[in-house]
Amino acid sequence: MDQREEKPNQQHSSPVYVHNPHLNALKDDILYHFSLGTGSHNLPAMFGDVKFVCVGGSPWRMKSFIEFIAAELAIEEAKSEYPNICAGTDRYAMYKVGPVLSVSHGMGIPSIAIMLHELIKLLHHAHCTDVTIIRIGTSGGIGLEPGTVVVTKQSVDATFLPKFEQVILGKTVVRSTDLDQSLAQELLQCSKELNQFETVIGNTMCTLDFYEGQARLDGAFCSYTEADKQEYLNKAKEAGVCNIEMESSVFAAMCKLSGLQAAVVCVTLLDRLKGDQLSSSHELLQNYQLRPQMLVGSYIKKQMKAKAEHS
Amino acid sequence: MDQREEKPNQQHSSPVYVHNPHLNALKDDILYHFSLGTGSHNLPAMFGDVKFVCVGGSPWRMKSFIEFIAAELAIEEAKSEYPNICAGTDRYAMYKVGPVLSVSHGMGIPSIAIMLHELIKLLHHAHCTDVTIIRIGTSGGIGLEPGTVVVTKQSVDATFLPKFEQVILGKTVVRSTDLDQSLAQELLQCSKELNQFETVIGNTMCTLDFYEGQARLDGAFCSYTEADKQEYLNKAKEAGVCNIEMESSVFAAMCKLSGLQAAVVCVTLLDRLKGDQLSSSHELLQNYQLRPQMLVGSYIKKQMKAKAEHS
Repeated sequence: MDQREEKPNQQHSSPVYVHNPHLNALKDDILYHFSLGTGSHNLPAMFGDVKFVCVGGSPWRMKSFIEFIAAELAIEEAKSEYPNICAGTDRYAMYKVGPVLSVSHGMGIPSIAIMLHELIKLLHHAHCTDVTIIRIGTSGGIGLEPGTVVVTKQSVDATFLPKFEQVILGKTVVRSTDLDQSLAQELLQCSKELNQFETVIGNTMCTLDFYEGQARLDGAFCSYTEADKQEYLNKAKEAGVCNIEMESSVFAAMCKLSGLQAAVVCVTLLDRLKGDQLSSSHELLQNYQLRPQMLVGSYIKKQMKAKAEHS
Repeated sequence: MDQREEKPNQQHSSPVYVHNPHLNALKDDILYHFSLGTGSHNLPAMFGDVKFVCVGGSPWRMKSFIEFIAAELAIEEAKSEYPNICAGTDRYAMYKVGPVLSVSHGMGIPSIAIMLHELIKLLHHAHCTDVTIIRIGTSGGIGLEPGTVVVTKQSVDATFLPKFEQVILGKTVVRSTDLDQSLAQELLQCSKELNQFETVIGNTMCTLDFYEGQARLDGAFCSYTEADKQEYLNKAKEAGVCNIEMESSVFAAMCKLSGLQAAVVCVTLLDRLKGDQLSSSHELLQNYQLRPQMLVGSYIKKQMKAKAEHS
């Protein structure tokens, strides 16, 4: 009872890869943290047309993104309500309009990794092809005016190296954190055309902790001085780091392994060289958080227009 | 305008420690991920009477816990609604009834660490004393009947060592993951008195990943065999590991540093030696998830009764 739409006979269409021979032996695959599964849901019918996936930490932001993109793309059901597809759980929220899927991932590498394992399996089970995935997030900037948007060139670790360490059976495996450079350039071009805020391409440092792990002076614990902090952040800057967040490395590594064209677009909420606390007004911070949405919305619109003209 | 209640003159009352000389220099301390702050909220008035903090991954579960504990303690406002104290954000949810605070922490070490930094500062700013904190969670069991509750003796890493590695300014600092052994014994005793489900004391393995990090065969990626998985989990079992989850190590480390009496109480949702997927019925899994609540509820009730008899 495969109800997915027939695809035109595309050459070079790129599937979503899983690398797990054990999956074939599963009768049903339960995507527990989405409250979805192959036995209980017709995933090809629900998701087979997905071409763009946007992910971000906050469930509220991912709901507002789907409303924004629906209006932006002038999709017919644009004024209706968008139900949370993962309403059976509070781990993640998921929304869909046309070819765009919007999914929240919580905070930190482990949280986004659980989501990505289940998302990659979902896209695979749904037989999706040619999927672009973009993380839209918030970050701390280094030497940038707050509100600047950073499109990630390389995701680097706390020692400024472009790698992600995955522990498997107690042993560390190193994975590449390469992102799609042509997609990053296209996003930069979109920002120039939008001409509403500053966007730069640069390295993004991905940490396991928000306070001590990012050299903040305002956590419950802090054993270093302001000078130590400045020295560390300036070293990061010299290594090309423009911003710091907590999900990009595993996002880049997992998307690369599964053949997804991936980008990371984060707005900087403050300049970490000047402070640590998010003390800007709620309104200003909210406004900043709209910027990655606007940029990615404009990119998706442009891609869909180009595709319509070619078909 | 400090409205907190006057405390009786207790000897040996134990405060909540922060270890950060920079905090004194802050005019206001913004607890960004709680949407609370010292400038905008009277923290001593709101939280000064807190004696028990329960934390867990799911916001729904932490709301249901506060309703359960209110009924259990027969606190007068027990039938009213419990508003989310962190309603200004969707990062965490927080509820309070009497001396009990219930806070969600999302999934994984980075997510709970952000919450704990801000919670420890909150309890410190509120001048709380003699606080007990318990994580109530879910986990995968090793060689235990599903539904068994595990009170953690030691939290160990993926190589079965009782340590937590915190990266500070790019360098790794090792922290102890000791938990309060007398509290663990008291919780075990409470379970015996309840006599409604099996509870054991054992080591808990804390991982950074749910799929490859826990030797699951059902992630998007899997490069090992069923035999490799069994070998790894059996080694864990030999090292005294009874269950696997994703937050206990940093929880133990941070609570120890701040002088909080801490315990981890997780129910096992499946036996990982027999499978990986959470395929039990929704009702059964929901029922299992109530067990840590019931156990901790009974402990808090007993403690409050003992305190009332002594005063």
